[in-house]
Amino acid sequence: MLINCVAYQHGRKLADIEIADISDYVSRPDCLVWVALADPTHDELDQMTEEFGLHPLAVEDARKGHQRPKIEEYEDSLFVVLHAVEAAPGQSDGAFVVGEVDIFAGRNYILSIRPATMQGFTDVRARCEREPELLVHGSGYVLYAVMDAVVDRYFPILDDLQSSLEQAESRLFDGSSSRTRIEELYELKRRLMTLKHAVAPLMESVGKLYGGRVPQLCMGTQEYYRDVYDHLTRINGAIESIREMHATAISVNIALISMSESEVTKRLAAWGALITVPTLIAGIYGMNFQHMPELHWLFGYPYALALMLGIDVVLFLRLRRAGWI
Amino acid sequence: MLINCVAYQHGRKLADIEIADISDYVSRPDCLVWVALADPTHDELDQMTEEFGLHPLAVEDARKGHQRPKIEEYEDSLFVVLHAVEAAPGQSDGAFVVGEVDIFAGRNYILSIRPATMQGFTDVRARCEREPELLVHGSGYVLYAVMDAVVDRYFPILDDLQSSLEQAESRLFDGSSSRTRIEELYELKRRLMTLKHAVAPLMESVGKLYGGRVPQLCMGTQEYYRDVYDHLTRINGAIESIREMHATAISVNIALISMSESEVTKRLAAWGALITVPTLIAGIYGMNFQHMPELHWLFGYPYALALMLGIDVVLFLRLRRAGWI
Amino acid sequence: MLINCVAYQHGRKLADIEIADISDYVSRPDCLVWVALADPTHDELDQMTEEFGLHPLAVEDARKGHQRPKIEEYEDSLFVVLHAVEAAPGQSDGAFVVGEVDIFAGRNYILSIRPATMQGFTDVRARCEREPELLVHGSGYVLYAVMDAVVDRYFPILDDLQSSLEQAESRLFDGSSSRTRIEELYELKRRLMTLKHAVAPLMESVGKLYGGRVPQLCMGTQEYYRDVYDHLTRINGAIESIREMHATAISVNIALISMSESEVTKRLAAWGALITVPTLIAGIYGMNFQHMPELHWLFGYPYALALMLGIDVVLFLRLRRAGWI
Amino acid sequence: MLINCVAYQHGRKLADIEIADISDYVSRPDCLVWVALADPTHDELDQMTEEFGLHPLAVEDARKGHQRPKIEEYEDSLFVVLHAVEAAPGQSDGAFVVGEVDIFAGRNYILSIRPATMQGFTDVRARCEREPELLVHGSGYVLYAVMDAVVDRYFPILDDLQSSLEQAESRLFDGSSSRTRIEELYELKRRLMTLKHAVAPLMESVGKLYGGRVPQLCMGTQEYYRDVYDHLTRINGAIESIREMHATAISVNIALISMSESEVTKRLAAWGALITVPTLIAGIYGMNFQHMPELHWLFGYPYALALMLGIDVVLFLRLRRAGWI
Amino acid sequence: MLINCVAYQHGRKLADIEIADISDYVSRPDCLVWVALADPTHDELDQMTEEFGLHPLAVEDARKGHQRPKIEEYEDSLFVVLHAVEAAPGQSDGAFVVGEVDIFAGRNYILSIRPATMQGFTDVRARCEREPELLVHGSGYVLYAVMDAVVDRYFPILDDLQSSLEQAESRLFDGSSSRTRIEELYELKRRLMTLKHAVAPLMESVGKLYGGRVPQLCMGTQEYYRDVYDHLTRINGAIESIREMHATAISVNIALISMSESEVTKRLAAWGALITVPTLIAGIYGMNFQHMPELHWLFGYPYALALMLGIDVVLFLRLRRAGWI
Repeated sequence: MLINCVAYQHGRKLADIEIADISDYVSRPDCLVWVALADPTHDELDQMTEEFGLHPLAVEDARKGHQRPKIEEYEDSLFVVLHAVEAAPGQSDGAFVVGEVDIFAGRNYILSIRPATMQGFTDVRARCEREPELLVHGSGYVLYAVMDAVVDRYFPILDDLQSSLEQAESRLFDGSSSRTRIEELYELKRRLMTLKHAVAPLMESVGKLYGGRVPQLCMGTQEYYRDVYDHLTRINGAIESIREMHATAISVNIALISMSESEVTKRLAAWGALITVPTLIAGIYGMNFQHMPELHWLFGYPYALALMLGIDVVLFLRLRRAGWI
Repeated sequence: MLINCVAYQHGRKLADIEIADISDYVSRPDCLVWVALADPTHDELDQMTEEFGLHPLAVEDARKGHQRPKIEEYEDSLFVVLHAVEAAPGQSDGAFVVGEVDIFAGRNYILSIRPATMQGFTDVRARCEREPELLVHGSGYVLYAVMDAVVDRYFPILDDLQSSLEQAESRLFDGSSSRTRIEELYELKRRLMTLKHAVAPLMESVGKLYGGRVPQLCMGTQEYYRDVYDHLTRINGAIESIREMHATAISVNIALISMSESEVTKRLAAWGALITVPTLIAGIYGMNFQHMPELHWLFGYPYALALMLGIDVVLFLRLRRAGWI
Repeated sequence: MLINCVAYQHGRKLADIEIADISDYVSRPDCLVWVALADPTHDELDQMTEEFGLHPLAVEDARKGHQRPKIEEYEDSLFVVLHAVEAAPGQSDGAFVVGEVDIFAGRNYILSIRPATMQGFTDVRARCEREPELLVHGSGYVLYAVMDAVVDRYFPILDDLQSSLEQAESRLFDGSSSRTRIEELYELKRRLMTLKHAVAPLMESVGKLYGGRVPQLCMGTQEYYRDVYDHLTRINGAIESIREMHATAISVNIALISMSESEVTKRLAAWGALITVPTLIAGIYGMNFQHMPELHWLFGYPYALALMLGIDVVLFLRLRRAGWI
Repeated sequence: MLINCVAYQHGRKLADIEIADISDYVSRPDCLVWVALADPTHDELDQMTEEFGLHPLAVEDARKGHQRPKIEEYEDSLFVVLHAVEAAPGQSDGAFVVGEVDIFAGRNYILSIRPATMQGFTDVRARCEREPELLVHGSGYVLYAVMDAVVDRYFPILDDLQSSLEQAESRLFDGSSSRTRIEELYELKRRLMTLKHAVAPLMESVGKLYGGRVPQLCMGTQEYYRDVYDHLTRINGAIESIREMHATAISVNIALISMSESEVTKRLAAWGALITVPTLIAGIYGMNFQHMPELHWLFGYPYALALMLGIDVVLFLRLRRAGWI
Repeated sequence: MLINCVAYQHGRKLADIEIADISDYVSRPDCLVWVALADPTHDELDQMTEEFGLHPLAVEDARKGHQRPKIEEYEDSLFVVLHAVEAAPGQSDGAFVVGEVDIFAGRNYILSIRPATMQGFTDVRARCEREPELLVHGSGYVLYAVMDAVVDRYFPILDDLQSSLEQAESRLFDGSSSRTRIEELYELKRRLMTLKHAVAPLMESVGKLYGGRVPQLCMGTQEYYRDVYDHLTRINGAIESIREMHATAISVNIALISMSESEVTKRLAAWGALITVPTLIAGIYGMNFQHMPELHWLFGYPYALALMLGIDVVLFLRLRRAGWI
């Protein structure tokens, strides 16, 4: 599905153009064509391949999907795969969905392809059109703007993860280390790995877009790519921190479970003692010896009950002092 | 066992040729000889060594087998060892078998050797013959096509691993952390390590076939090798993810076992209490004191039973409120 | 909030200057302008951007905050983000707060921005003014002095962490592995990660300010930056040590909990035996057989009690020898 | 103890020579002297130092022993330390002993020193003498042949480790996770570390003998050293795999122990219930109330026994259905 | 405190000289001044700074102490910090103390500073003076000799750690996994980390003193520094091995504790059964039914006792066969 197809010149919008005209505009040296597709059909992709002269391996990747984030250089053009993240609709527990955004960037064109269900880049286009002094940098700047938008959307997801961890931590020590708690920790780990999967390979690739030899396309916008790289490093560092705290949380959780089990054992044993000791006394006075003086006492029975109660009271106090009850 | 022995020129099939004629065709500058063997005998390998002039160390490796995946350069030829994977026949639980594929690639020849039991590369050959415009790239392209086929067969195995993990995860939390569950997790790890063993060293080797100094053979097809490398990186990344989730799953499993043990202990203790408390009461009324008024009551016995039952009901309710029963 | 705005020449203070005059002084080749801001308003930052000609991406980072420590080169100027740490006010348990310090350093200016709540750098400025022979090195030296001050403040925090670990260690083995102990260990880890977060990325960045190609600004003060780097390496090494000991401490803690649980079980069982054995004897003599000689003995009852006591004494001694009581 | 001292020319054996004549032969440009010592005395080593002109630091290392595997270059000669492994004599459980083999290799001499108790290299010498076309490569080839022999002896040890792990794995899940099992796993780890200690540093060193700048000595035999390197990489990879599976096995073992403990607890509790419930009933009918109708029934006693038995049968069936018995 | 202050020429001792004369001797091109200080006062250090022209940052480090091991190059001189280790006096359990040794090395001087309580380097000096052919290499050789002496003192400490681990291992499996055992393991880890802290950073630094670009000072003695590096690598490798075995030991320890707990539970339950079963029988014959034939048997009582004993014997044998008793 075609979303936009616009030609720009000197940083300013020329016109919405027809797909068939793309190759004409692209061949003009001072023109920039920026096309946005969502869930393109097979035909649309074929058209684009022809108009822009895309590399068949890159087109095949875009067609098959399930790529990891990467930036590949094909002669003087780039093929970029990003993982866009978005809070899962209708869920409020930090779940998110991952969509694949593919970008073909040439000297004077940008073609972005995204899943129809995900948020688009109209705000990016609007911002670029408001700032012609930056848009004049050409496709290198537009590519940056789109990547920056994608990366910026990682931050709220990261914040969700951070607060999920903090929530899990605070629950860890409030005494309720239940099965649900462990399931939450496991789920958190899964989300963490998904985000890491989106961030780490991209970081590695973006690192090659500034400093040292960079693709022709990114000349003059290196500082912007360094900024994206810096954001990714920040996210990646935070993910690593969460990962390490998460591992510690699981260890600590196991310790806490063992400990609470130990406490339960103690309490049970304590209460058990309060029952078995009187049972022994009752057993003794249930013996059938002919000569048991207590049995003939007038207050033998109350005495026995008092004995049971007395021992239990003493026991109870000692056990409580020992912290077992 | 000889499977195929075909000569190509300018990307088109010339003829099926005799083994003895191989050296004639190889010496023609514009010819490509592509031979496929399955479980070759000692003599067949000797013949090949002679016809193609293979390096003795490489031939010895091919003869002994049990190599790790690698790509070795011998002057202007390459010796490639791949681990091909295939779902184990007759088993549906994700088990797979690993076979070793050896490829000798020279300027104008390709010799592939595979175990007789594994799937061959006839589909690769057919595709290459359908696309003479690519086959014209020569042995570099054929080597790519074979590697690509081998690597593509890793993906379903990876998907099996992924779904095994997901299955294990979902069972983890359904309360049944039995011995079988742990055995499955261990088995999953073993399969994971086998796949990693096939992928990781190959990835490292393929990384040297594009960018920087590459073997003469791979000139002009570098983008294809980068594509293979990209696939391997993707698989490797997924393996690492599964590995990390797997480690977390084992930790979590230990926590869950401890926790369920703790719950069992509690339940047992609760039911125990419901028995020992009435036992104590029975013990008391089994004492032989002469003066025990209750014993002479008409309804002493029902009263005692009611007392037992009453205490148990109260106890039961309290224990259930505490979540112990 | 403007804290200071001073111009220096040849290492000596010229005058406190107005913000509006900054650009005049900066344009003088032998002048150094050193401005300190705390929690600047939007307008103040705009003014500074204009006067010093700061790079918009760096200014945006300073405005948004939440950066990781980094040193970025923009043409001939540096943008430095540091995490300053400070013992949390009113708390004595090693808690600390982290504040972000941003420094813009050009050939002949230094602009430092810090949170209003954190300790400033007036002592750094005072020391620099006392040592004109060093201040003459210009902005490279001032930047060093500020970084050195920030890094020096990490040491007491590190010492706190070290002593927290030692405290936790000593408690580990005094028998009281309670819930609080685990919570402390977890909290320690959290503080450790926060400090690591401040130190590790900075170390990486500072490593690029000496040896090899260094920014123009740091020429002639490389040995000072190596000194900062050395301090950071030292802190980082200590953090790694604490981290590893911490992981061991948690493992050991789990072992100790299991062990103490095992001991509790043994003690309980031992005391239980001291009760159930006499109960059995009492049960035996409570049987209603007509022909039980002991029942008719004159000293049958004392004999039974003595039997119970005797068996218990023997049992007690054996259990104590076995270390169960 | 001198084992052999032979001079070769053009790949063919010239003569067994006297130690005193070594320096004469070494000075001839086309001669190769190959000396083998086992547990040399101090004097023998002094003689060798003099005849071959060995470097004092290398000789000191050979004298003191306890070196890690390494390859050191001293001007135009190499000093190589290898760890040779051998199945421990008289033990069949995979135990092995490690011996240190020191090799001094110069342009035209090889001096190998090994412990007297370990297997020698006479087979290597015999093979070299049978293949004069290879021996003509000189000391570089002989050094390779000795290293290859040492490395080849790692494979059976590795296979032992592999099968030890597999044995441990299969026992893990057959229900018998006894103390011996854990001790075996620990012992396996120890053997694994010893082999790793022999392989990993050597691999690193051999990696410098082919590709890039290599010692003069190894020119022309680089492909052979790459082959040794490849073998070492294979062994190292297998060690890493075993190590990782081993760690998983220990985790899994802990889970299994916890689980079997949990099962024991359940079974005990189940059997306990089958005893305590009838005890309660017996207690009830042991009460001394005057008015207990059952006591006067003719079949009261059988009724009571039947009640006990009946409840136990019901209980037993329910517990068995719950999988507790 | 000044220990020695000696001037050497051409490898031979000239004279013990006054501190004030140092600068004279240092200025002579063929002279070597070697000064040893122990716990120098502030003034002594100032004197040295002046006489040798030491760099202020290095002097400050020496003054403040608490440095990590490092080798820093200041123009044509080196500043070296080593951690010397020494068995703790009066303790025989492998405890050791760490002292900081600082060395300033210039083209023709060596200044070593050590804590007064630690062993000095008089033996190093004596050996150097006995070997003038080596001492003639100048300060590069002396620096090597001192470093070699410090590193050699690591080996006995390492052996202690090794034997501590072996002791811990052998105790691990002798059944006594007591609290003390865990405490020993923890203490071992602490010592290990301290030694690693001394070795690892030094290794990294020494690696820069041979091969590639090395400081002027170390030219001509590179092989000696490689030897030190090799020793450090060996120690470091051993530390890593111990560390890994230690981690395994802790895991194994936890497994053993769980297992022994499980065994205790079983034994307790077994003994418990031997008591509760007769208690049930006693309870049965303590019931008050009128018609209980056994009660009237002449040998009813012995029969009951025999029944109890018989059941217990059968139970005992079965439990022993099951390995529970």
